[in-house]
Amino acid sequence: MSGIDAMKFAELDTDRKKRTGFPEVVFCQGKKDEFLQDIFAKLYAANGEVLGTRATKEQFGIVKSVLANAEYDEVSHIIAVKGKEKKLIGNIAVCTAGTADIPVAEEAAKTAEFFGSFVERIYDVGVSGIHRLLSKTELLNRANCVVAIAGMEGALASVIGGLVPVPVIAVPTSVGYGASFEGLSALLTMINSCANGISVVNIDNGYGAGYIATQINFLAERGKTK
Amino acid sequence: MSGIDAMKFAELDTDRKKRTGFPEVVFCQGKKDEFLQDIFAKLYAANGEVLGTRATKEQFGIVKSVLANAEYDEVSHIIAVKGKEKKLIGNIAVCTAGTADIPVAEEAAKTAEFFGSFVERIYDVGVSGIHRLLSKTELLNRANCVVAIAGMEGALASVIGGLVPVPVIAVPTSVGYGASFEGLSALLTMINSCANGISVVNIDNGYGAGYIATQINFLAERGKTK
Amino acid sequence: MSGIDAMKFAELDTDRKKRTGFPEVVFCQGKKDEFLQDIFAKLYAANGEVLGTRATKEQFGIVKSVLANAEYDEVSHIIAVKGKEKKLIGNIAVCTAGTADIPVAEEAAKTAEFFGSFVERIYDVGVSGIHRLLSKTELLNRANCVVAIAGMEGALASVIGGLVPVPVIAVPTSVGYGASFEGLSALLTMINSCANGISVVNIDNGYGAGYIATQINFLAERGKTK
Amino acid sequence: MSGIDAMKFAELDTDRKKRTGFPEVVFCQGKKDEFLQDIFAKLYAANGEVLGTRATKEQFGIVKSVLANAEYDEVSHIIAVKGKEKKLIGNIAVCTAGTADIPVAEEAAKTAEFFGSFVERIYDVGVSGIHRLLSKTELLNRANCVVAIAGMEGALASVIGGLVPVPVIAVPTSVGYGASFEGLSALLTMINSCANGISVVNIDNGYGAGYIATQINFLAERGKTK
Amino acid sequence: MSGIDAMKFAELDTDRKKRTGFPEVVFCQGKKDEFLQDIFAKLYAANGEVLGTRATKEQFGIVKSVLANAEYDEVSHIIAVKGKEKKLIGNIAVCTAGTADIPVAEEAAKTAEFFGSFVERIYDVGVSGIHRLLSKTELLNRANCVVAIAGMEGALASVIGGLVPVPVIAVPTSVGYGASFEGLSALLTMINSCANGISVVNIDNGYGAGYIATQINFLAERGKTK
Amino acid sequence: MSGIDAMKFAELDTDRKKRTGFPEVVFCQGKKDEFLQDIFAKLYAANGEVLGTRATKEQFGIVKSVLANAEYDEVSHIIAVKGKEKKLIGNIAVCTAGTADIPVAEEAAKTAEFFGSFVERIYDVGVSGIHRLLSKTELLNRANCVVAIAGMEGALASVIGGLVPVPVIAVPTSVGYGASFEGLSALLTMINSCANGISVVNIDNGYGAGYIATQINFLAERGKTK
Amino acid sequence: MSGIDAMKFAELDTDRKKRTGFPEVVFCQGKKDEFLQDIFAKLYAANGEVLGTRATKEQFGIVKSVLANAEYDEVSHIIAVKGKEKKLIGNIAVCTAGTADIPVAEEAAKTAEFFGSFVERIYDVGVSGIHRLLSKTELLNRANCVVAIAGMEGALASVIGGLVPVPVIAVPTSVGYGASFEGLSALLTMINSCANGISVVNIDNGYGAGYIATQINFLAERGKTK
Amino acid sequence: MSGIDAMKFAELDTDRKKRTGFPEVVFCQGKKDEFLQDIFAKLYAANGEVLGTRATKEQFGIVKSVLANAEYDEVSHIIAVKGKEKKLIGNIAVCTAGTADIPVAEEAAKTAEFFGSFVERIYDVGVSGIHRLLSKTELLNRANCVVAIAGMEGALASVIGGLVPVPVIAVPTSVGYGASFEGLSALLTMINSCANGISVVNIDNGYGAGYIATQINFLAERGKTK
Repeated sequence: MSGIDAMKFAELDTDRKKRTGFPEVVFCQGKKDEFLQDIFAKLYAANGEVLGTRATKEQFGIVKSVLANAEYDEVSHIIAVKGKEKKLIGNIAVCTAGTADIPVAEEAAKTAEFFGSFVERIYDVGVSGIHRLLSKTELLNRANCVVAIAGMEGALASVIGGLVPVPVIAVPTSVGYGASFEGLSALLTMINSCANGISVVNIDNGYGAGYIATQINFLAERGKTK
Repeated sequence: MSGIDAMKFAELDTDRKKRTGFPEVVFCQGKKDEFLQDIFAKLYAANGEVLGTRATKEQFGIVKSVLANAEYDEVSHIIAVKGKEKKLIGNIAVCTAGTADIPVAEEAAKTAEFFGSFVERIYDVGVSGIHRLLSKTELLNRANCVVAIAGMEGALASVIGGLVPVPVIAVPTSVGYGASFEGLSALLTMINSCANGISVVNIDNGYGAGYIATQINFLAERGKTK
Repeated sequence: MSGIDAMKFAELDTDRKKRTGFPEVVFCQGKKDEFLQDIFAKLYAANGEVLGTRATKEQFGIVKSVLANAEYDEVSHIIAVKGKEKKLIGNIAVCTAGTADIPVAEEAAKTAEFFGSFVERIYDVGVSGIHRLLSKTELLNRANCVVAIAGMEGALASVIGGLVPVPVIAVPTSVGYGASFEGLSALLTMINSCANGISVVNIDNGYGAGYIATQINFLAERGKTK
Repeated sequence: MSGIDAMKFAELDTDRKKRTGFPEVVFCQGKKDEFLQDIFAKLYAANGEVLGTRATKEQFGIVKSVLANAEYDEVSHIIAVKGKEKKLIGNIAVCTAGTADIPVAEEAAKTAEFFGSFVERIYDVGVSGIHRLLSKTELLNRANCVVAIAGMEGALASVIGGLVPVPVIAVPTSVGYGASFEGLSALLTMINSCANGISVVNIDNGYGAGYIATQINFLAERGKTK
Repeated sequence: MSGIDAMKFAELDTDRKKRTGFPEVVFCQGKKDEFLQDIFAKLYAANGEVLGTRATKEQFGIVKSVLANAEYDEVSHIIAVKGKEKKLIGNIAVCTAGTADIPVAEEAAKTAEFFGSFVERIYDVGVSGIHRLLSKTELLNRANCVVAIAGMEGALASVIGGLVPVPVIAVPTSVGYGASFEGLSALLTMINSCANGISVVNIDNGYGAGYIATQINFLAERGKTK
Repeated sequence: MSGIDAMKFAELDTDRKKRTGFPEVVFCQGKKDEFLQDIFAKLYAANGEVLGTRATKEQFGIVKSVLANAEYDEVSHIIAVKGKEKKLIGNIAVCTAGTADIPVAEEAAKTAEFFGSFVERIYDVGVSGIHRLLSKTELLNRANCVVAIAGMEGALASVIGGLVPVPVIAVPTSVGYGASFEGLSALLTMINSCANGISVVNIDNGYGAGYIATQINFLAERGKTK
Repeated sequence: MSGIDAMKFAELDTDRKKRTGFPEVVFCQGKKDEFLQDIFAKLYAANGEVLGTRATKEQFGIVKSVLANAEYDEVSHIIAVKGKEKKLIGNIAVCTAGTADIPVAEEAAKTAEFFGSFVERIYDVGVSGIHRLLSKTELLNRANCVVAIAGMEGALASVIGGLVPVPVIAVPTSVGYGASFEGLSALLTMINSCANGISVVNIDNGYGAGYIATQINFLAERGKTK
Repeated sequence: MSGIDAMKFAELDTDRKKRTGFPEVVFCQGKKDEFLQDIFAKLYAANGEVLGTRATKEQFGIVKSVLANAEYDEVSHIIAVKGKEKKLIGNIAVCTAGTADIPVAEEAAKTAEFFGSFVERIYDVGVSGIHRLLSKTELLNRANCVVAIAGMEGALASVIGGLVPVPVIAVPTSVGYGASFEGLSALLTMINSCANGISVVNIDNGYGAGYIATQINFLAERGKTK
């Protein structure tokens, strides 16, 4: 009854890029060190690039020791092992209500950039000082998709939804205290939005929002069949 | 073991007007007919006026049969037996996100008017079309207190909180469906507001908001000691 | 203190079509009869077409008495007053887990069709008989956007998310009993999906999903600037 | 893909004092050190005074190194950089149910004092020994606004609401254990209060209560237009 | 596969009176008519008296047709088939916050009286007018046990707990609206009471409180072994 | 935009009997009349027998008009169209805490009998009179699987789990009031059971329990490969 | 703006012993060191004995340095400074479902003993091995009051409630994992108990149960007026 | 008032193996060191083998010092003191959605193996890459019982339920973040499964699933009476 080798059970989804257009991404949080090295190495071999999310600085060290060109971003906690330079296309606006939401926003932005989208950052434009957001209306209207990120009461998505003609991906964050219940309040706000065009991902799921925004951005720039 | 007479157990708080400046108000919902007649009659005798909230049209009939000058408002479900005409003073702005919130808003507005406050109604100015609210900024800034009423995601209070220098009383409503959980979503939004100056009352509690707004309005107009 | 005229407070958002590309839509549930006639008439005058959701058959009669070309669909509870014929473009796949989810699906599908999208219906393909869904893979892959609708455990969205390269809009439904808590279980399932490309709207919000799917479908077919 | 400079995205709301009568306040919890120094410095330059809430002693050290006249209060966790001496006007009563609620109470009290309100502290007067509160009735009745702070079952606000003619701002605290659910129980108690004149802020939000109490206190002392 | 006879599966607990000192009581709500007649008849035969709770007037008719001396109380919804007259001993104080709580209170009071306890009714003494309760302190202090019944914020139990030396049985009621969540708010308030000597039964469970109060009242009057 | 034919979208899982050993069963609740007739007819043609759960008496009439040998059980709300007589094999004990749980129990029992299991009914043996259950220990120990059904506090499953060597399928019911939250309390109790061998199905899901119990019963009687 | 002296705000309830028969008890958790010394010293001076609950070993050291006869119990986390020896009277049975519940049980038992009650400990008799509890029936029946303590599914109270004629005070504990939600599951189980005579205190509130059990025990032994 | 000896209160259930066919197992989490040694020693003496779950490496050291043949598995956190070699019989398939679920899966697998079941591990086959699971269909169909383990949205159990003819024991895990609420989302998904044959155990309860799976596996291999 010795310890099992968790690695040998991992079923790498090598077919995914063909099926969905995007390579498999590594959710680093809680992964064991050996596992991390192994999976980064295998995915890099298969795809020529790898993205890892929710990584600690220690995990970055582990990865860098096998993939020397790995890079780490301390704000978003993303490890990126980039392939050849990509031209960033289209336009995704990533917006936050406050400065505390920026780590989630950067996870979204860097994910979208890694996949090849151009990103416009519009941060700290929460609804309690609505003029800040309104002064960015022109910028917002250049986007193929808007990512709206907010904690506490999470009202940002509704206001943006009423301003733009494109889909808004809303990301509730765990920023807040007391009755914010670690993001539940913002999640409910966004799911109940009275504005049109708003759909929601999990609390703090910047990566997911960046992924969907890129899907939409690419559809807008290249169409489905290109 | 015969039925008890619930009436004989009612402890009318005749001292309340002296203690708090406001007479006792009747929460009609679920009250038995005889009880309703009795309590309206007694309070009218004591105070020369009575306000009843959450009354059905049938209950109004019951009350009118003993107090012929009773009036009923079908939108707010308020029964008012008015005393001598009051000059409406000060300024309370009552705002709603949508038209479905108007019954709660009218409960607030008519309560405030009954007590002697002047009320400005600003309805259907929800955040998904933010220009509607912004066009009312000047009106909002005349108020001593703003009542912000919204269901669904309840974001209205936060935006108003950032625009005005006076207290905002936020009223979540049960308007919505699905994950609005009968007003819980709007309640959490308002309690977690990132804007300053916002405090919250119970779901659909228009009466409570009208009461507090009047307390503040009177303090602003007359000061504490007048 | 007479009843107020709720109508006079309605702030019609006539600017919305210019701002967002879509005209205002009527959420009929709970609206008073006079209000309904008035708003349908005004929006038809402004836009030459009107969509109303969550309407009863009685409400349809009310509307039809002022707009004779109004049509009603009993499954989706949609009232449509159509303008000139539109060519349906692109491809949206609307999928359900069971037959009980079809009313929500039809709300999504008919909304998308009203706005001008072509819709492929793929119903009753829930995960407990996974071969039913897999046999539709080719159909799914023609879509610019997939709407995945499910109650009970709501697992459909995750499986579809792993099969297609385009965004999946997930709609939890209130179908179920006991611990489904009127759709909360399906909502949580979808928000926590381990698949990429999934974002979620409110419980039973077929309209919202049809709207977003159309935004994406149009972006894919025409690009942003066309 | 280097780390971004969160500072450059902060949108300082320099207009706020003009709009709302109060300068922007710093919510220190979780803020990075450099950011903290920068924002305190900028706000001090703009307003001649700064208030920071939820600060650690370490953060105080950081701030003091750039603003030597900064002061720290260990009970309320408030950093204050004061401008010229203010005459404290009016009267706000800040009450707590127990001694464990005092940190939240001091956040409220010191916020109100910073803005220029006179504060009367009435602590440890919870409802399980009701005579303690009743012996303070005269003190309570001098206030323009009462802040009622309680954890556990949170019943204090209701009793005070029945004793005073002025608005009561209720602050639930996370004091308690078991089914207090970190303040949820007290929050629900206060939102459901049967007493009039009570509105509620977020769990442990002493700052918010101090802010609103000051708005009301100033309205009572100076009126709206003065 | 014909319908089963539910009656034949009922396992009457004829031993209960010996084991616990109290005969089995009938929870009438939802019971089929035939079942009701049968069980009342059997229990009357066994114990010479029967108590039924949560009965409709229709159910009373059903029972009365087999047990002519059955009595019904419309406030408490209790059916009582009494045996020989009992001398009511001891003292139980049954208190309510409002008049809407009286049906639950009467269920408690009539249960206690049926079992042989003397009951003092103290109704409509909620905490928002605390003087009403305080004026009854002497009455309260005659009791061997106090039953405190309240909906909405449910603060009554805590105040009584601080006034009396005997156990307080707290009964949350479903009286309220919005965030009272059908009694959950009052239940949490009572479970978190900061006062000593308070224990809680289910929402609206007047019967349960009357039962326990009688257990305590009898222990106080007769001791354990008598 | 005419109404769609929901029937044409139903994907009958004709392969299911081969895959899982059990034919498809009809969940009647909420199904339209035409749909019901159609699906019963098709499944009867395919399998020579049909089971329908959660049917109203009206739905039974609808089905009987096309399948004359359909039978209805008013307690369990089951419609059964039986094929050739089956010998009932093995032994499943179906237990309830109270008589109010019997409808759910009969859904479980009749489902198991329809599939071919022998069922022993042990009803009204809740834990508050534990001797009733203990007197059935011998009966319980004859079973290959026990179904334990209880509402309110749902403790029955834990006690049975400690008495028998075979799996216990626990079914929480919505029987109860107040803090039972329509079965949530019993569900949590059963999921947290300290006894071994207990797994849980949805609230009121008698059918599901009867199905699983039969799977286990058949495995015990015939083994896997027979 | 220097730190306030929390001590000076503490309102010691010196009147409590006269009012309720029990001296004030110290809830040590989270109390500052100086405060602890001060309050123990004052209460000892007033009452000649002090009980402190939820104390750490460090806090005991602090107290012992001012009251040398203080004693500490590591299982219950109780500090006791005893007065003159008391004769323990009556009989309280304190029962637990498992060994992990013993710390809460000892808090109850030692509280009751401190106040002067005789306590019988009956531990590790959970319902999954029901014979363990049944073998103690005689012991249970000697008690004037039973305290039933359990985590996980919390079924112990219901079984005991059916066995004894005296009140059962149920204490849910936070023992468990997953869906026990830190004691919520056990709390709901106990509140919904189908057995008579059960009332509930807060999660892990051994002290509260010991207090109430003593109130009942004393009533049974001495009657109300002695 | 010295510390009690918790050990002396432990009621070892030595009768359990006879009653249920399985020896008592030790839940190590939170147990004191001395207690652990004592209980392992006693159970080993009684049964010739012992299983301990949720043990830390430190606890293993403690146990090994008294039972030298104890073994520890770091993935499952299981301590096993094995008796004589058992032939592993039958077939249980243990499946996980992701690699993060493997610790729970190994707890299930090693428990089943300890009791004498043969286990097939099928890991990392979550529904977002459904082909991975489908490629294992043949393996799945060899099992007498399937254990389906998943966190996040927990959809795995439903898909497996539709593929196999045997019972599926579903184990929700706490793997996930945000709105997974530590496993609650997966628990609800599994309880609401639309597939037949699925029953659920507590979050992360691998042990419980391994136990039940073994009960079923043994019934299938040996029948009830063998």
